[in-house]
Amino acid sequence: MQINPDLFTRFDPLGGTIEGAPQIERRLSDMRGAFADEDAFNAALAQGDPVLYTLAAVAPAHGDGALHYAIAQIAPGRIGAEYYMTKGHYHAWRPAAEVYIGLSGTGFMLLEEEESHESRLLPLTPNAIVYVPGHTAHRTINTGEIPLTYLGIYPAAAGHDYGSIATENFRKILVAVNGEPTLVDR
Amino acid sequence: MQINPDLFTRFDPLGGTIEGAPQIERRLSDMRGAFADEDAFNAALAQGDPVLYTLAAVAPAHGDGALHYAIAQIAPGRIGAEYYMTKGHYHAWRPAAEVYIGLSGTGFMLLEEEESHESRLLPLTPNAIVYVPGHTAHRTINTGEIPLTYLGIYPAAAGHDYGSIATENFRKILVAVNGEPTLVDR
Repeated sequence: MQINPDLFTRFDPLGGTIEGAPQIERRLSDMRGAFADEDAFNAALAQGDPVLYTLAAVAPAHGDGALHYAIAQIAPGRIGAEYYMTKGHYHAWRPAAEVYIGLSGTGFMLLEEEESHESRLLPLTPNAIVYVPGHTAHRTINTGEIPLTYLGIYPAAAGHDYGSIATENFRKILVAVNGEPTLVDR
Repeated sequence: MQINPDLFTRFDPLGGTIEGAPQIERRLSDMRGAFADEDAFNAALAQGDPVLYTLAAVAPAHGDGALHYAIAQIAPGRIGAEYYMTKGHYHAWRPAAEVYIGLSGTGFMLLEEEESHESRLLPLTPNAIVYVPGHTAHRTINTGEIPLTYLGIYPAAAGHDYGSIATENFRKILVAVNGEPTLVDR
């Protein structure tokens, strides 16, 4: 049987990889300004520069109606009381939604709507699906003891806007309070 | 913590259900004309009208950039030498792609491009991803001994065109030859 490799991939739900997709690393040093506790950030960075998360994306086609997808894996850990997380982003094409599917580990997605700045915290665990509407900044957070791995599927035209997060950041942060993930104002 | 139920669901990768999503059944009697062996179809229908597959879709939002998703489960079985399968469809909005993710069981996706009628057969197994480009008819086929369960994610604007398949059908069929799935001309 003939298999077209462009239209077929396999992913590793524990390893956080997709066959044939190059992996991008985000290290602690890439995250300056993201975590609320700057002293804790600097203290952690003085100890080393660990990989906080990895990303691998597949772009089988482009243009209207096409879709892309990616796998990501966030290490367990904290900077001060704040859990390891992604930088977070808007889609450059603001109406673009994204479907997240939890594969392994335990965490949350933090959503913040662009106009109202309303925050929503949604669990991301194996077999959970989180729908990120358009016009919504989204960040993924690992609150567990093992890596958090998930898939994201999004319109090919979505693009990524990290700049708005880098300057404004999210209004809320997820911190450990008595060991429990707790959403508080930044 | 506040959870917005509209943006969060869980699915059952073995049961083929999504929490809160109504399930649609496709029975053998809904499939007249789909299978190549009409005598085998009529003989099977005389024995009963089993559910061949179920579908449950979630439509969290509509419009440009929005996404929908669905879970489907195909029972194991055959009509003559041809494996149980879905009707298959084009997207009404032809450029719309779809990302399929295998959850449990063993099967294939049969793709047929609208202009060239080129056929592609791609495996659908747990942790496999099949990308269905726009302008491509697609059908899912269970070649295993247990239910085949999978997710599909697609643009909200995709729509379904079953009519073109009902009149023309796919050029190729997947049949058991010495117990092995084999793609042959209809």
